[in-house]
Amino acid sequence: MISMETAAQFGSIENLVQLTAGQYTTGSLILMVSYGAHFAFILFFLMMSLQLAPRYRIVPVLSAVVMASAGLSLLREFSLWQASYELVDGIYRPLAENQSFTNAFRYGNWTITVPILLTQLAIAFGISRPDLHKRVLRMIVPALLMIWTGLYGQFGETGDWSRLNLWGVISTVFFVWLIVEVRGVITLGVANSPAELKGWPKNIWWYFLATWGLYPIGYALPQLGFTGDVVVVRQLLFSIADISSKLIYGIILSRYVLRRSALEGY
Amino acid sequence: MISMETAAQFGSIENLVQLTAGQYTTGSLILMVSYGAHFAFILFFLMMSLQLAPRYRIVPVLSAVVMASAGLSLLREFSLWQASYELVDGIYRPLAENQSFTNAFRYGNWTITVPILLTQLAIAFGISRPDLHKRVLRMIVPALLMIWTGLYGQFGETGDWSRLNLWGVISTVFFVWLIVEVRGVITLGVANSPAELKGWPKNIWWYFLATWGLYPIGYALPQLGFTGDVVVVRQLLFSIADISSKLIYGIILSRYVLRRSALEGY
Amino acid sequence: MISMETAAQFGSIENLVQLTAGQYTTGSLILMVSYGAHFAFILFFLMMSLQLAPRYRIVPVLSAVVMASAGLSLLREFSLWQASYELVDGIYRPLAENQSFTNAFRYGNWTITVPILLTQLAIAFGISRPDLHKRVLRMIVPALLMIWTGLYGQFGETGDWSRLNLWGVISTVFFVWLIVEVRGVITLGVANSPAELKGWPKNIWWYFLATWGLYPIGYALPQLGFTGDVVVVRQLLFSIADISSKLIYGIILSRYVLRRSALEGY
Amino acid sequence: MISMETAAQFGSIENLVQLTAGQYTTGSLILMVSYGAHFAFILFFLMMSLQLAPRYRIVPVLSAVVMASAGLSLLREFSLWQASYELVDGIYRPLAENQSFTNAFRYGNWTITVPILLTQLAIAFGISRPDLHKRVLRMIVPALLMIWTGLYGQFGETGDWSRLNLWGVISTVFFVWLIVEVRGVITLGVANSPAELKGWPKNIWWYFLATWGLYPIGYALPQLGFTGDVVVVRQLLFSIADISSKLIYGIILSRYVLRRSALEGY
Amino acid sequence: MISMETAAQFGSIENLVQLTAGQYTTGSLILMVSYGAHFAFILFFLMMSLQLAPRYRIVPVLSAVVMASAGLSLLREFSLWQASYELVDGIYRPLAENQSFTNAFRYGNWTITVPILLTQLAIAFGISRPDLHKRVLRMIVPALLMIWTGLYGQFGETGDWSRLNLWGVISTVFFVWLIVEVRGVITLGVANSPAELKGWPKNIWWYFLATWGLYPIGYALPQLGFTGDVVVVRQLLFSIADISSKLIYGIILSRYVLRRSALEGY
Ligand SMILES: CC1=C(/C=C/C(C)=C/C=C/C(C)=C/C=O)C(C)(C)CCC1
Ligand SMILES: CC1=C(/C=C/C(C)=C/C=C/C(C)=C/C=O)C(C)(C)CCC1
Ligand SMILES: CC1=C(/C=C/C(C)=C/C=C/C(C)=C/C=O)C(C)(C)CCC1
Ligand SMILES: CC1=C(/C=C/C(C)=C/C=C/C(C)=C/C=O)C(C)(C)CCC1
Ligand SMILES: CC1=C(/C=C/C(C)=C/C=C/C(C)=C/C=O)C(C)(C)CCC1
Ligand code: NA
Ligand code: NA
Ligand code: NA
Ligand code: NA
Ligand code: NA
Ligand code: NA
Ligand code: NA
Ligand code: NA
Ligand code: NA
Ligand code: NA
Repeated sequence: MISMETAAQFGSIENLVQLTAGQYTTGSLILMVSYGAHFAFILFFLMMSLQLAPRYRIVPVLSAVVMASAGLSLLREFSLWQASYELVDGIYRPLAENQSFTNAFRYGNWTITVPILLTQLAIAFGISRPDLHKRVLRMIVPALLMIWTGLYGQFGETGDWSRLNLWGVISTVFFVWLIVEVRGVITLGVANSPAELKGWPKNIWWYFLATWGLYPIGYALPQLGFTGDVVVVRQLLFSIADISSKLIYGIILSRYVLRRSALEGY
Repeated sequence: MISMETAAQFGSIENLVQLTAGQYTTGSLILMVSYGAHFAFILFFLMMSLQLAPRYRIVPVLSAVVMASAGLSLLREFSLWQASYELVDGIYRPLAENQSFTNAFRYGNWTITVPILLTQLAIAFGISRPDLHKRVLRMIVPALLMIWTGLYGQFGETGDWSRLNLWGVISTVFFVWLIVEVRGVITLGVANSPAELKGWPKNIWWYFLATWGLYPIGYALPQLGFTGDVVVVRQLLFSIADISSKLIYGIILSRYVLRRSALEGY
Repeated sequence: MISMETAAQFGSIENLVQLTAGQYTTGSLILMVSYGAHFAFILFFLMMSLQLAPRYRIVPVLSAVVMASAGLSLLREFSLWQASYELVDGIYRPLAENQSFTNAFRYGNWTITVPILLTQLAIAFGISRPDLHKRVLRMIVPALLMIWTGLYGQFGETGDWSRLNLWGVISTVFFVWLIVEVRGVITLGVANSPAELKGWPKNIWWYFLATWGLYPIGYALPQLGFTGDVVVVRQLLFSIADISSKLIYGIILSRYVLRRSALEGY
Repeated sequence: MISMETAAQFGSIENLVQLTAGQYTTGSLILMVSYGAHFAFILFFLMMSLQLAPRYRIVPVLSAVVMASAGLSLLREFSLWQASYELVDGIYRPLAENQSFTNAFRYGNWTITVPILLTQLAIAFGISRPDLHKRVLRMIVPALLMIWTGLYGQFGETGDWSRLNLWGVISTVFFVWLIVEVRGVITLGVANSPAELKGWPKNIWWYFLATWGLYPIGYALPQLGFTGDVVVVRQLLFSIADISSKLIYGIILSRYVLRRSALEGY
Repeated sequence: MISMETAAQFGSIENLVQLTAGQYTTGSLILMVSYGAHFAFILFFLMMSLQLAPRYRIVPVLSAVVMASAGLSLLREFSLWQASYELVDGIYRPLAENQSFTNAFRYGNWTITVPILLTQLAIAFGISRPDLHKRVLRMIVPALLMIWTGLYGQFGETGDWSRLNLWGVISTVFFVWLIVEVRGVITLGVANSPAELKGWPKNIWWYFLATWGLYPIGYALPQLGFTGDVVVVRQLLFSIADISSKLIYGIILSRYVLRRSALEGY
């Protein structure tokens, strides 16, 4: 058996906690549903794109790319979950056969998916070329800084609270900067939208805040204690955030551009 | 060897029962046929959608999404089955190498597939926009409550009958509520259908009751005893329900909208 | 080591027989070629369907579905083959690490593929709606009874000859019934075919008899003895039957409807 | 450890030879590049077919089928390579954990791919229906006899030189017969080609001889000795032959029919 | 345990170095993000090609082929990473269960992807037929020589500095030759581009130098020492190079031909 100190080095509370059968099953259930949903909706978004005016087709296509990338990442988390817990005397023990669990793959995957999600927004709102590049870049820069500082900080979740909180705050500063940039794009979106659809960007704004806001909660959660419930609740939170900010967000944007396509006579 | 009490904690009778070679083979056969059928029909539904008037294309596309998601879930059940039984002295023993079987993945997967199946129905019956959202939401709410209360209850199947039955009843209340909502959509479907097709929604109504009704039977079945036959019959019941309520249901709806497409001159 | 009696319980002679290196390699070669061919032709049939008049497109699409389903089943047989034989002292021993081989997955898979193959035939021959349903149903009923009685009987192949033969005869009765129904569809096919193509249904009739007739031979073969050669020859027979009755049959039907499409001016 | 005699029974020199780290890595590199290239070009050929006049679309579609089938076969060879060599004292030993390597899967796969490659040729050269069937059949018959006699003979490569050489010669006789038939098709191809493209069939003829001619060299090579270099060079030879005779050949034929499409005004 | 000398034979510093938990996780994160991104963008490029004038469609299709091939190669590197490191006493030890890591698969994969990337460039810049072949060939020859000499040299990275540097210099000579050839194609690209897009080839030129230039740095890096940081930084460098020179490069070329399509009135 590995000591607590060693286990803490992995920077994921999953490696410090024993799970009951119910907790273990719920955790794998959450991850399984998540990767299944993401993979399955690849098909939805690809077919959706064939229904749209050419200039909007890229919006659901990018959702399909996000589904594929996130699905692969979540399948990997599921495999780690299965491999790193082991049933001993009716309890699931972490670090089975020296395999460790990590949430870092999530952050890595965001490096790919977050820039795509933000680009999608600007394209859906019909921002045109020279402006589009500038706006997208102005969103991607704080987004990547937010993710990478958060990635560095999350290794502190196994007890190094000052690392967790300091980098969490820095990451949040970038998040606020990002929010300001997204707000700007939303405002352009309202201006660009046909009269019937001017309500959409505003709603998407609130939806964006509510769903992206779940991630920092998941980040901070381990401070509530190293227990099986915290582990499972955090995976649940991340999964709800994933399905909302990627899958349902993609459906919303796709329906918005479908309506725009129709209004533009396609 | 793990004690019966410990095994019961996993909340799946599969972990309590030894299987003969015939039972083990039949069980894996059932799961294998199920995932194979679901995966293979992805192709059918995607190609089908290309034959339809644009407004109906989403119906088979959603079936393809359901096929992919359910196929992945059933493949996972198949893998669990293979990993968790072990041949010892001519009999298949559960909890092999401390791997446990669970049906909970099924319930998890329904969280994705059931809302899609219900949305499909409303779209196929040509319910138009503001009403569509309202109707779909009114079906999804009781459906999710039904599934999640059932998921919680099913962990009682290894002997905690009061948990199984109490939550089974609560889940059934939500099922009845769902049935009422579906009935409403069916009625709209009859009104919306062209004269030649008015019989279809009515038949789909009975088909819906007959196939969705199989799931609560599978839920209650473990009370008949912890035997290999109950285990195998339950997997068979679930598989028949899966293929009927997702795959064949998808074919029926696709053919209905194909007829509507044709009648609308496409 | 497991006793012969125990091994017989699995109901597949593969578990009773030791193989030479050559026999083992030939067996895996046969299964590998089979699943590879089925998977690869998915692409052929999907692209083929895009060349056809809309009403015939379903014919190659159904072949693609059959390819996917049978491919998955044969890949599973291949994995079983690899896992269940083990090299000991220069000979391949069955039931390695207590893994058993089974042909039952084939029969399970036929439950999906055979109804599709028969539906394909009726659609290709241009039988129109109310009649189509009736004819398809009249073929599917004896086909499923044939498969399921055969599945039950094949567990007798490890020595319970009365089980094998009794259920083999019952299954054959259903096969004869099926042949009569198929003959009826062929006759309609001749009537429906344009003059230039009237020879096709007749040839398909003989082709059907010759290829489907291989399966009962594979069923009866174990009575020749529990030897490696019987094991390998039977897998070869099944594979030839699979490739003929699904893959090449699909090519023939696709070319028939391609010709019809052309004659109907598409 | 297994004796040389036993190892020879597997009929592949790979099971008789120890590899240095460099040889082992080079071998897996070759197989990995091969399966990667074949799988990746599936996409190329499918998209290519959408650019062509309908009558030529089948040509790249068949290349896609060949890519899929060969890719699966080569992925299997790669897995065998990894599983059957084992690092002991800085050297890779064959027959690790009693897993054996075999090249027989290649020959099995040719049974699928070679008939397709020959059919492709006749279709690309615009040979029309009754003649097409006859010509294709006249090429497939010697091709299959060549492959199967070669498959039987290659089991002699571990030291049974008379088996290797006798069946090699028989196989070569069928190869010569095949070459004569291909020459006939090439001649028809020259006649059928538009003036601007009459040079293509002639070049394809030399290309065919040069690339298909590599396979018998790989067949005979083990007679140079049971060494790691012979093993690696042979895999390299087979891989160059695979990529030339399937992948690049497919690109050449696709470009030829693309030119024909354009000249026919598509 | 394997001696340093033996480990050095594998020609990859990854086999010589122990990693902390953080380094191990970062390494697998980098590889996971890389393969996920490459696979996911297959969808993007395939859908992109449907938006273009037929003559430019091949450009994103070739990017899709590159994504698939590189994705498979990177998935394989990820698997090697996982299999070849093993957690012992809180540190990740290389050569776990005698599995070795290698970067050679990268070089092997370039043999496929680099010729495609160069062909893409010439096609995107609208170079027409006889010239196209000549130019492509003149780029591919030095490119392959650069890769293969580099592949041979990189086996020296475990301490044989003269091998590493000598072959590195030879490879660089071929790289310079390649750069000259690419420069020629860029010049043609400027001449061929419509006035509005004449800036693009020039920018692509600088982008090409910056991104391809990362690979030799990764090649030389092991001379900085056999440490975990060098291992991780090198994987990061390779991954940045991969995503820039294949994925983002593909997006740039696709957008360029999209603009050309539009200007040519498609
Ligand atoms: C503010 C903040 C964070 C924000 C993360 C966010 C907002 C992530 C969004 C991810 C998405 C949308 C992924 C989609 O694939 C971190 C990094 C957790 C660190 C703690 C502070
Ligand atoms: C009434 C009832 C149930 C109903 C389940 C149903 C109706 C499930 C339908 C699932 C479908 C259609 C899945 C498709 O993917 C439970 C939850 C078993 C719990 C016991 C009571
Ligand atoms: C008569 C008979 C049989 C017939 C089987 C047949 C005719 C199977 C056809 C299968 C096909 C066409 C599968 C395609 O996927 C059995 C069941 C072996 C049992 C013995 C008697
Ligand atoms: C003459 C000869 C042979 C020829 C083999 C050939 C010509 C194989 C071609 C394979 C192709 C083109 C495969 C594509 O997938 C054998 C059988 C090695 C045996 C020795 C004599
Ligand atoms: C100059 C030089 C090299 C250059 C490598 C390059 C330029 C690789 C490009 C690879 C690409 C673009 C791959 C895309 O899939 C080597 C071989 C490392 C060896 C050392 C000297
Ligand atoms: Na585990
Ligand atoms: Na993620
Ligand atoms: Na097992
Ligand atoms: Na399910
Ligand atoms: Na085995
Ligand atoms: Na089958
Ligand atoms: Na090995
Ligand atoms: Na091959
Ligand atoms: Na490991
Ligand atoms: Na690469």
